[in-house]
Amino acid sequence: MDFTPPARVQPLVARVREFVEQELFPLEPAFLNQEFSTLVPQLAEKRAQVKAAGLWAPYLPPEYGGLGLPLVEYAYISEELGRSPLGHYVFNCQAPDVGNLEILILFGNEEQKRTYLEPLARGDIRSCFAMTEPENAGSNPVLMDTTAVKEGGDYVIDGHKWFATGADGASFAIVMAITRPDADRHHRASQIIVPADTPGYRLVRNIPVMGGPGSDHASHGELRFEQCRVPQTNLLGPEGEGFRIAQERLGPGRIHHCMRWIGICERALDLMCRHALRRRVSSSSVLADQQTVQNWIAESRAQIDAARWMVLHAAWKMDQEGAYAARVEISAIKFFVAGVLDQVLDRALQAHGALGMTEDTPLSHWYRHERAARIYDGPDEVHKWVVARRILQSYRA
Amino acid sequence: MDFTPPARVQPLVARVREFVEQELFPLEPAFLNQEFSTLVPQLAEKRAQVKAAGLWAPYLPPEYGGLGLPLVEYAYISEELGRSPLGHYVFNCQAPDVGNLEILILFGNEEQKRTYLEPLARGDIRSCFAMTEPENAGSNPVLMDTTAVKEGGDYVIDGHKWFATGADGASFAIVMAITRPDADRHHRASQIIVPADTPGYRLVRNIPVMGGPGSDHASHGELRFEQCRVPQTNLLGPEGEGFRIAQERLGPGRIHHCMRWIGICERALDLMCRHALRRRVSSSSVLADQQTVQNWIAESRAQIDAARWMVLHAAWKMDQEGAYAARVEISAIKFFVAGVLDQVLDRALQAHGALGMTEDTPLSHWYRHERAARIYDGPDEVHKWVVARRILQSYRA
Amino acid sequence: MDFTPPARVQPLVARVREFVEQELFPLEPAFLNQEFSTLVPQLAEKRAQVKAAGLWAPYLPPEYGGLGLPLVEYAYISEELGRSPLGHYVFNCQAPDVGNLEILILFGNEEQKRTYLEPLARGDIRSCFAMTEPENAGSNPVLMDTTAVKEGGDYVIDGHKWFATGADGASFAIVMAITRPDADRHHRASQIIVPADTPGYRLVRNIPVMGGPGSDHASHGELRFEQCRVPQTNLLGPEGEGFRIAQERLGPGRIHHCMRWIGICERALDLMCRHALRRRVSSSSVLADQQTVQNWIAESRAQIDAARWMVLHAAWKMDQEGAYAARVEISAIKFFVAGVLDQVLDRALQAHGALGMTEDTPLSHWYRHERAARIYDGPDEVHKWVVARRILQSYRA
Amino acid sequence: MDFTPPARVQPLVARVREFVEQELFPLEPAFLNQEFSTLVPQLAEKRAQVKAAGLWAPYLPPEYGGLGLPLVEYAYISEELGRSPLGHYVFNCQAPDVGNLEILILFGNEEQKRTYLEPLARGDIRSCFAMTEPENAGSNPVLMDTTAVKEGGDYVIDGHKWFATGADGASFAIVMAITRPDADRHHRASQIIVPADTPGYRLVRNIPVMGGPGSDHASHGELRFEQCRVPQTNLLGPEGEGFRIAQERLGPGRIHHCMRWIGICERALDLMCRHALRRRVSSSSVLADQQTVQNWIAESRAQIDAARWMVLHAAWKMDQEGAYAARVEISAIKFFVAGVLDQVLDRALQAHGALGMTEDTPLSHWYRHERAARIYDGPDEVHKWVVARRILQSYRA
Repeated sequence: MDFTPPARVQPLVARVREFVEQELFPLEPAFLNQEFSTLVPQLAEKRAQVKAAGLWAPYLPPEYGGLGLPLVEYAYISEELGRSPLGHYVFNCQAPDVGNLEILILFGNEEQKRTYLEPLARGDIRSCFAMTEPENAGSNPVLMDTTAVKEGGDYVIDGHKWFATGADGASFAIVMAITRPDADRHHRASQIIVPADTPGYRLVRNIPVMGGPGSDHASHGELRFEQCRVPQTNLLGPEGEGFRIAQERLGPGRIHHCMRWIGICERALDLMCRHALRRRVSSSSVLADQQTVQNWIAESRAQIDAARWMVLHAAWKMDQEGAYAARVEISAIKFFVAGVLDQVLDRALQAHGALGMTEDTPLSHWYRHERAARIYDGPDEVHKWVVARRILQSYRA
Repeated sequence: MDFTPPARVQPLVARVREFVEQELFPLEPAFLNQEFSTLVPQLAEKRAQVKAAGLWAPYLPPEYGGLGLPLVEYAYISEELGRSPLGHYVFNCQAPDVGNLEILILFGNEEQKRTYLEPLARGDIRSCFAMTEPENAGSNPVLMDTTAVKEGGDYVIDGHKWFATGADGASFAIVMAITRPDADRHHRASQIIVPADTPGYRLVRNIPVMGGPGSDHASHGELRFEQCRVPQTNLLGPEGEGFRIAQERLGPGRIHHCMRWIGICERALDLMCRHALRRRVSSSSVLADQQTVQNWIAESRAQIDAARWMVLHAAWKMDQEGAYAARVEISAIKFFVAGVLDQVLDRALQAHGALGMTEDTPLSHWYRHERAARIYDGPDEVHKWVVARRILQSYRA
Repeated sequence: MDFTPPARVQPLVARVREFVEQELFPLEPAFLNQEFSTLVPQLAEKRAQVKAAGLWAPYLPPEYGGLGLPLVEYAYISEELGRSPLGHYVFNCQAPDVGNLEILILFGNEEQKRTYLEPLARGDIRSCFAMTEPENAGSNPVLMDTTAVKEGGDYVIDGHKWFATGADGASFAIVMAITRPDADRHHRASQIIVPADTPGYRLVRNIPVMGGPGSDHASHGELRFEQCRVPQTNLLGPEGEGFRIAQERLGPGRIHHCMRWIGICERALDLMCRHALRRRVSSSSVLADQQTVQNWIAESRAQIDAARWMVLHAAWKMDQEGAYAARVEISAIKFFVAGVLDQVLDRALQAHGALGMTEDTPLSHWYRHERAARIYDGPDEVHKWVVARRILQSYRA
Repeated sequence: MDFTPPARVQPLVARVREFVEQELFPLEPAFLNQEFSTLVPQLAEKRAQVKAAGLWAPYLPPEYGGLGLPLVEYAYISEELGRSPLGHYVFNCQAPDVGNLEILILFGNEEQKRTYLEPLARGDIRSCFAMTEPENAGSNPVLMDTTAVKEGGDYVIDGHKWFATGADGASFAIVMAITRPDADRHHRASQIIVPADTPGYRLVRNIPVMGGPGSDHASHGELRFEQCRVPQTNLLGPEGEGFRIAQERLGPGRIHHCMRWIGICERALDLMCRHALRRRVSSSSVLADQQTVQNWIAESRAQIDAARWMVLHAAWKMDQEGAYAARVEISAIKFFVAGVLDQVLDRALQAHGALGMTEDTPLSHWYRHERAARIYDGPDEVHKWVVARRILQSYRA
């Protein structure tokens, strides 16, 4: 038993932290007050700096330009990146590209790797993932209406998707569609790569989410597939294995998210402490002298630390024994850490008073957009059910 | 003891409810997806309809065009209006105009009433209230840097304000400024009417709040007063009585807000029930069959009902005994109802899943903007202190 | 709409309060540290004083020696009595006798009234109610194994019951038993009066509950019925109507309990304030100066007031429209007020520190025994389901 | 970074677990329903078995008969022992003896070790720790009235203490008393060993706590010291260092407690799962099918795991860097784990319904007595203040 962070990760963390604070914090006011699309050129420069510094896409294998960090090591980096809303994007660690990279590595054939994986790994293009449907509860992934019917050598896709993050500007989508309607419900769907310029692929809109549609990477697309035809060679992995592949994709993704949320929590706590020490509330005292604020700081500290150890353990277990062995842990961190995030952000915002409502700090952005943490990749309720079911099964065995 | 709603209020409530549902619900998609300023002409028509129907500004005395409802009766109307984010505006019941109307009635001289109160009561103009300062904690109103110095027959105002709701497009501001710096700390400030076209009055920006700056009534202004000169006749009420007047203004305002929040809660609960009954989560069940969602519905119902009786009692006590007698009750409802609002909105949003994050329902709007309910007009922490202090004092007596 | 307490109740409340404070508070140390049975003689004297003062059993009709208060008026008395753990007993308002009195009045025949109701109303005897069974979930009352089979003119009862409050020393039990096994599940059970000296009636034990078995009224009995034979004339109300009668019994009972809990809350808050003002935590400050404790006081005040208005409204509605019309309200108060009780007691205990753990205040007693408030008469989970079901049904209609 | 439990601890854990389940679970009904003193002979036999099995006092150095486990290893054992309310006692790991052993090892002279430490380590005697005073807030340890005045070669002790756990039957007390009234407030007190048979040492009572006074080890004593005279050689450690020694004592003690609480949580969760799978709630379903109960299971699982990693990390840090370096972590676990314990016990009790209130499971015992977890060794409020203060200081530096 050893709680020391892995040796090589400590200097990396220090360098990433410095980069985030020096290079990205100053861009936050622009991020918080402008369309993301207007920032893309500036962010491209920062991405080049990250590459030059040898910090690019640390979770990627070296052959794709990354550092090849195992999950437990990348976890530390993801936390650091999470301290700024720009961190993951600038290091090419943003969802959904990171998940798409992962499944392209695992399931892509050589052609797919060359065409999609390599430019994605370089950050030359972006991608999206089209799974959730407005007509079906996202909490139950086997409810799905989108179909991909074989005709000649093609799949002809028809369906309606939404919450395809970053669809605006994406070069391709990975689409979940029913290809074997008569199979059992976990083997009906497949994953298919669909270039965005395919006829019948339509980005209907960037969905207005928490106040606005956003743009580019910072958006969630509604997509229509209307007689959208791609060659059957665009199938990713085996047919009928769409759900399994999605699960493979989600396991590490939940670690990434959880550590990103912990980074957000740390920044929020830091902002709360700084503001509390600075803000006078009477002629003789500052906000930090108030016991209520002290309670918030202490409770946040304890919850964040608890959350971090839980996530690091889950990451370590995945590294050691694989995602399947760690599935209860992964469900447990998903709802536990999302809950901590919710509370820490709420306290930090409240401590800032009216200022917390403004775009003068990133708290308002996170308060809005990270509300989704309790929903995406499985809502809290589903993950609690997964955990309880496994535990109860162990008694029935 | 009689819990029956006042007789005349019941038919009024029914008519207001019908108007809100028939005329305002259909405008909500536009409200949620466009700048408020683009809606102003359409809303002006709705306002005309409200006037024609004899439902205008129900809290205003008949001589100013209202229905002269006492607080406990208006409370019921405010709840109904609260069910749509457009309700209060269309009935000329929106903050901060309703508070400004109140203090103009109580403290305005004839000239002030003619110039400011009457057009405001008619809805011909809008106004704002400039009290909070970015450099000072809003939770302690005696911390204030804005000054109004007498020169000749004028006040020369210098200072920096923010969160002046609706400053964009307002014809005048009521400004809190220090006029008697040497008085005791509760008698240093006065309220002064400042027309928006006065030289030295500057709307710096609509503050980006929860994702955007908004516009017109739906905005919060940052204001600078730079050698801004108004005649001393613009003083509202007695000099040095700014805090007392602000308190008078806030008492009924808190009832209005609390009942508006209860209206929001009712709508959120209604949206949650409808969505839960409609949304399939498996081939054989809908979301409403889930016990967790049932818990949310029941807990929300109980909390809302508890909140409503508390607020109606406080309103009734204010009507009977005045705001001072009810000050503990008013502080108690302020934080209690804001807390219920927070929880009910959170549950309703979660029940909607990804849909709850979008602008396809008003939940996201309320989730963002009503987060401020726990901050404005005194943060929770201040109201808890007020309640505790009074209770503890009763033992020391 | 009028929130003034009913006129005649105010002087009654004052007299009850004085009696409870003067006569019962001094007995609390004995109650908290001795077996209840040792106190019975002293409490009998207090009961005589209550009768002499004309305050006996205020909910009972005058023909049975009470004051004939409607529910909303008795509610105020129940709160006052609740401020001491001895209040209800000394005023002959204790469960389960009060519920048994109620159904004897509604459903008893003349003989039953003479034999059971009258001495119970006078406080000459006590009774118990045998419904819950250890082998069946109390949350689902239709699960029941106890049977009463007709033989000759008798019922022969066999079964196993527990949590028959006050069985120790009770003169008779009202027993729920299946008499019509083939009827639909809500019409299978009947209520039967069984004198405690009937052969085959056996008090197995006072169940050790929260640390000890208690005694006399302050106990919960486990009962066995073994070929226990009573004449069929002991049937209470119509055969097969056991559930309906139980419902009738529970409606007002929940009001009584909720107001008793509010009385407990008021006392707990009072104890917390007094201790906080007295307890030094440093050379210059007392516990009441701590913001955390102030928060507890304010949050408790707000919750208690919210709870009281909710309960009074439910009582008023029952008085006006009957228990059936108020069934959603009754379920809502049952879990809401039990939740408030839980939180207020927890805060008051915490504020007392180690002292709160001792029997030197009644807080520890309530903390232990009122934990059951969230369980008896239907656990929280059942009442939430009732509320949600009714609300959702209103949409399906 | 390695989350594998230390190699040698795993077989130990398995043996301890088996012993607790095989030998101690069967004694629980007696423990829950009888005075502790009646069980002492039987427990002495179990203690002999533990010794014979080589599992005695695992935290003690081998020279005192223990296994010499470092804190992080003993933590695992403490969790196992915590699964039964008898575990720690039977393995001679019970508070306050374990803390007294610790400071006797660190600060005792040879004579003290021979007279007090050795028989205590063997389990031949018990001891108590007299620090808290009824007249002073336990949350502020510098408030203390007990004095020890030097006369001749003696200390003459006068004072009033309570919550001296296990004073009933203890052979000696370690007493905190002011010996240097003029020193600064952290150097005024000393620790002095006082044999229980010293004239002037008086056990006033076993304090009735959560329903009863208990007995023997399972009790909390109120003590009076009245001109109680012991030789100055009974001073433990340096004079004036009483607080520092108490801190030394509390650091590891908090790890022990936290891991014990985690053991309680695991047992409570286990009992909840078993009951939920067994208890029918309708003809076709068991309690475990209810989503609310599933939520409780999942939330408990996540919280317990989070808590355990936090505590293991704090233990590991203490082993590596000492108690001082880990003081923020220790305060954080103290309130975090106590909070988890509170919630897990509450859920498990609620899931058991009426059964949870009885002594038929250990839940009621823990619900009552572990309420003190949020109070003893520093209430939550003090530990939150410690954590917040350190964090805020790091910004001021």
